Amino acid sequence: MRRFAADRARRAVAASLRGAASSRSAAASPLAPAPCHPAPPVGAAAMAAALARTMSTAAAGTPPVSLNTINPKVLKCEYAVRGEIVTHAQNLQQELQKNPDSLPFDEVCIWMVSTTTSLLLLLSMINGLSYIYLFQWQILYCNIGNPQSLGQQPVTYFREVLSLCDHPALLDKSETHALYSSDAIERAWQILDKIPGRATGAYSHSQGIKGLRDEIAAGIAARDGFHASGDNIFLTDGASPAVHMMMQLLIGSEKDGILCPIPQYPLYSASIALHGGSLVPYFLDEETGWGLEVDELKKQLEEARSKGITVRALVAINPGNPTGQVLAEENQKKIVEFCKNEGLVLLADEVYQENIYVEDKQFHSFKKIARSLGYTDDDLPLVSFQSVSKGYYGECGKRGGYMEITGFSPEVREQIYKLASVNLCSNVSGQILASLVMNPPKAGDESFESFMVERDGILSSLARRAKALEEAFNSLEGITCNKAEGAMYLFPRLHLPQKAIGVAQAAGTAPDAYYAKRLLEATGIVIVPGSGFGQVPGTWHFRCTILPQEDKMPAIISRFKEFHEKFMDEFRD
Amino acid sequence: MRRFAADRARRAVAASLRGAASSRSAAASPLAPAPCHPAPPVGAAAMAAALARTMSTAAAGTPPVSLNTINPKVLKCEYAVRGEIVTHAQNLQQELQKNPDSLPFDEVCIWMVSTTTSLLLLLSMINGLSYIYLFQWQILYCNIGNPQSLGQQPVTYFREVLSLCDHPALLDKSETHALYSSDAIERAWQILDKIPGRATGAYSHSQGIKGLRDEIAAGIAARDGFHASGDNIFLTDGASPAVHMMMQLLIGSEKDGILCPIPQYPLYSASIALHGGSLVPYFLDEETGWGLEVDELKKQLEEARSKGITVRALVAINPGNPTGQVLAEENQKKIVEFCKNEGLVLLADEVYQENIYVEDKQFHSFKKIARSLGYTDDDLPLVSFQSVSKGYYGECGKRGGYMEITGFSPEVREQIYKLASVNLCSNVSGQILASLVMNPPKAGDESFESFMVERDGILSSLARRAKALEEAFNSLEGITCNKAEGAMYLFPRLHLPQKAIGVAQAAGTAPDAYYAKRLLEATGIVIVPGSGFGQVPGTWHFRCTILPQEDKMPAIISRFKEFHEKFMDEFRD
Repeated sequence: MRRFAADRARRAVAASLRGAASSRSAAASPLAPAPCHPAPPVGAAAMAAALARTMSTAAAGTPPVSLNTINPKVLKCEYAVRGEIVTHAQNLQQELQKNPDSLPFDEVCIWMVSTTTSLLLLLSMINGLSYIYLFQWQILYCNIGNPQSLGQQPVTYFREVLSLCDHPALLDKSETHALYSSDAIERAWQILDKIPGRATGAYSHSQGIKGLRDEIAAGIAARDGFHASGDNIFLTDGASPAVHMMMQLLIGSEKDGILCPIPQYPLYSASIALHGGSLVPYFLDEETGWGLEVDELKKQLEEARSKGITVRALVAINPGNPTGQVLAEENQKKIVEFCKNEGLVLLADEVYQENIYVEDKQFHSFKKIARSLGYTDDDLPLVSFQSVSKGYYGECGKRGGYMEITGFSPEVREQIYKLASVNLCSNVSGQILASLVMNPPKAGDESFESFMVERDGILSSLARRAKALEEAFNSLEGITCNKAEGAMYLFPRLHLPQKAIGVAQAAGTAPDAYYAKRLLEATGIVIVPGSGFGQVPGTWHFRCTILPQEDKMPAIISRFKEFHEKFMDEFRD
Repeated sequence: MRRFAADRARRAVAASLRGAASSRSAAASPLAPAPCHPAPPVGAAAMAAALARTMSTAAAGTPPVSLNTINPKVLKCEYAVRGEIVTHAQNLQQELQKNPDSLPFDEVCIWMVSTTTSLLLLLSMINGLSYIYLFQWQILYCNIGNPQSLGQQPVTYFREVLSLCDHPALLDKSETHALYSSDAIERAWQILDKIPGRATGAYSHSQGIKGLRDEIAAGIAARDGFHASGDNIFLTDGASPAVHMMMQLLIGSEKDGILCPIPQYPLYSASIALHGGSLVPYFLDEETGWGLEVDELKKQLEEARSKGITVRALVAINPGNPTGQVLAEENQKKIVEFCKNEGLVLLADEVYQENIYVEDKQFHSFKKIARSLGYTDDDLPLVSFQSVSKGYYGECGKRGGYMEITGFSPEVREQIYKLASVNLCSNVSGQILASLVMNPPKAGDESFESFMVERDGILSSLARRAKALEEAFNSLEGITCNKAEGAMYLFPRLHLPQKAIGVAQAAGTAPDAYYAKRLLEATGIVIVPGSGFGQVPGTWHFRCTILPQEDKMPAIISRFKEFHEKFMDEFRD
């Protein structure tokens, strides 16, 4: 009897699960479990299509999952920095491990050796032992901003603190002082005191540990000279999940558009594609050093609107990726005004805020610009993305980052919080590291001097590497390259011979992708073709990081030049 | 002249960015940047709507982002384990910090103190210093499987290895041996040797570090007695992102359905809602200890199909969450057969594989079951989710986990890889920890004995706590509770007086949510109402973790009983 009633009731809940209009509050609808998507209106056509699909699924030999049945948005998404060229590089690397003689660059990549001294290098060259040192350096990944994969060392103080927080039992032992600096020990205590129960192994608040968010907010306030609140910080596993979260929030259908720079970091195009929105491109002007002109923004916005697209947000990447430009303060002001006037969310990708290599530019956060114009929370929704993967720290593997959100109503913030809570929280080590990079050692701390030596060493070396590469590219026939004012990349333009373009197109390949593939196969150097970032049609570019270690740079440059000259000779019109 | 040409070209690329049918290969379409979503067909009505929206956006005073403009799927998504009750608890906690006398339980929560001795406790009670020890224990979060937040200590060996990998410079120092066990030092070396360049701060392969994946695969093979490959492992920041990735892959529209248990872990309903699919519920039978019957699966599948829904996958949670049941081997076989016959992907949530508390049940992975039936990769697509957050380790804050995927075609795997690569990689500490839990210390290792003491101590205590709570619940009027065979939860049924139901409904609240709110306000204990997981209509439940430390359990139980009896007295029909 009870079973029968339950059975009847089940049908009711099944209907409510699929069909009921779901309310925002589960409590308001006592019979419904967590609301889910309502069923589609089912017409005869839909039914027939579904039946056909059902039959084909059940048919023997048809796989349950195929490219025809998966989410078409996934198919549409592309992510060039880890795309075809990188996969090709990984395959080549495996091939080299099996058969070191299989490719032309196995013996000439000695300049990629990371830790051997000149003497060892010389010895190894003489007695043919070079493979011992070469093994893992045969492919040089310049495709992605991944400093430590190319030999950059982590900042000691940060790692000391992380190591202690990972094993807090060390803090009670006197021997610990022989291995860790005293301010790192003190900092670890301070951090643990901010974590409820000192439990670094517990899920945190979905926005991240409150005390760490407050520390980050204090760092932002010190940087900008304007108030910041820990309540506005969402700690995330690197900046990428934060970007996805905002796209998920803002995009409901293909009628929702996001203004993105072209060239852009493909995370944006990938995320917009995955969430089913429309990328509304605005073009950076290569001739003025990748300038961002508000007239261009207006034009593209109007064009999108005339096509029925509601533009929800503008993405600005500063310093630029892949372009390396640093926006001028006046320019940023105009962008803020534009977003305010047009009712757009300003999504500010500011992950390279510490990577600036020219004297005449400095980083200003968009929030600082907005506040300096007198705009408050009421005027403009603004999101700033930051990451521990970039800067001088380059801690990509730690997956730490945050977004600071201002100018959203409490109801919308609640929705953002919900999105954060669906993944519970970001990793606590990444959270700790994010608080460290926003509040590094200060003058007077035991580690301060050694910290500054490490920090300035990395940043000044990056500046020299950027300049060396830029000059090298500009010295070559058929390449022009803007200055890298910031970030970790150069985005040189390839003026390819018509013959090369023809060969590439005949092979069904974009000419810059063809060039990148040839470069990889000849030298082991991995770059990303410009077509992965977007570019003015008929122009060709590539993105190359400035991250190979400085002592390897001359050899890399000469190897690159050698390839390029041969390539140009081969295809000269 | 050049500017003019570029300008014309820009229009071309803008069109191609928005309108062109995007090909899967950027290389095949040399003019297009990373393909993105095509523009919608724009009719007059759409245009008018867009214009209206544009005008309203530009209108003064209208916020650019509101609940009316954001993605409706986000609004629909609910995530009860971090939902209203938890937010309410957080607010109460803040209130208590400001004004400790504001709530009835501030003085009686002494049993929640984590580290004080009885003497200190006594002293503090005598001289009124109790708040010093109580501060962070006034709210008891039993809403979520977060062991370390309730005082569970991390496993020493795992933390030693993580600490060393975070600061590899320690490995070269002799003093390190005074602080770390020798096998942890050796393991850290082995792990670093698996990481290219020993760079724990570099982005890894998007599936995770190959050597660690191989180690995990070896652990799976040892567990199951069947082959496993590191190529099939995707390391993720906990299991949640892996679940989202699969939902994103499988769901293209509301016509794509996913069979989920009811009650279910709300990650599934939340993820399905976010990706716009249809949750197809199947009911676990409370009377047979939350049994999973294949007849019920068939019935629900057919019902969904008759409504035009193509069911893509079946979610099975074993051991069960929130129900704590462990599936019998025979039952699992039938589920595998069902998925094979119906062409469904089997999504196996196996994150509680080490949490089994009864003698007569043991964990069998669904892959082991499928292979023991003779099914290969060709027969059945299968995904197994695992996490470092559960088991005896309970390392929720580390956000480590993986999914093992088998039975997908190379083309579909490529799409899964692309989804992984859009977030670059999971955090490396979490990756390392995932490899450690799948390959813990072995007999003969220096740490083995102490490791086993910690491991067995935690697991046997969890078993005792599960039993104590279950017996306590069953001893109360109006509560019946199935045995917790595994996982970290009990899901007792509340047989509430009609008067209580009436009061709750009059307040627009589900009766179990009302009960949970009253419990929280009276005792500081946070549970999750059954309505967040789904339940047979007209029945009421709650989920409560078994995680409070054992010495606190008697006081918690007596506090709970006291509340419950008063509640029943208040509302007795």
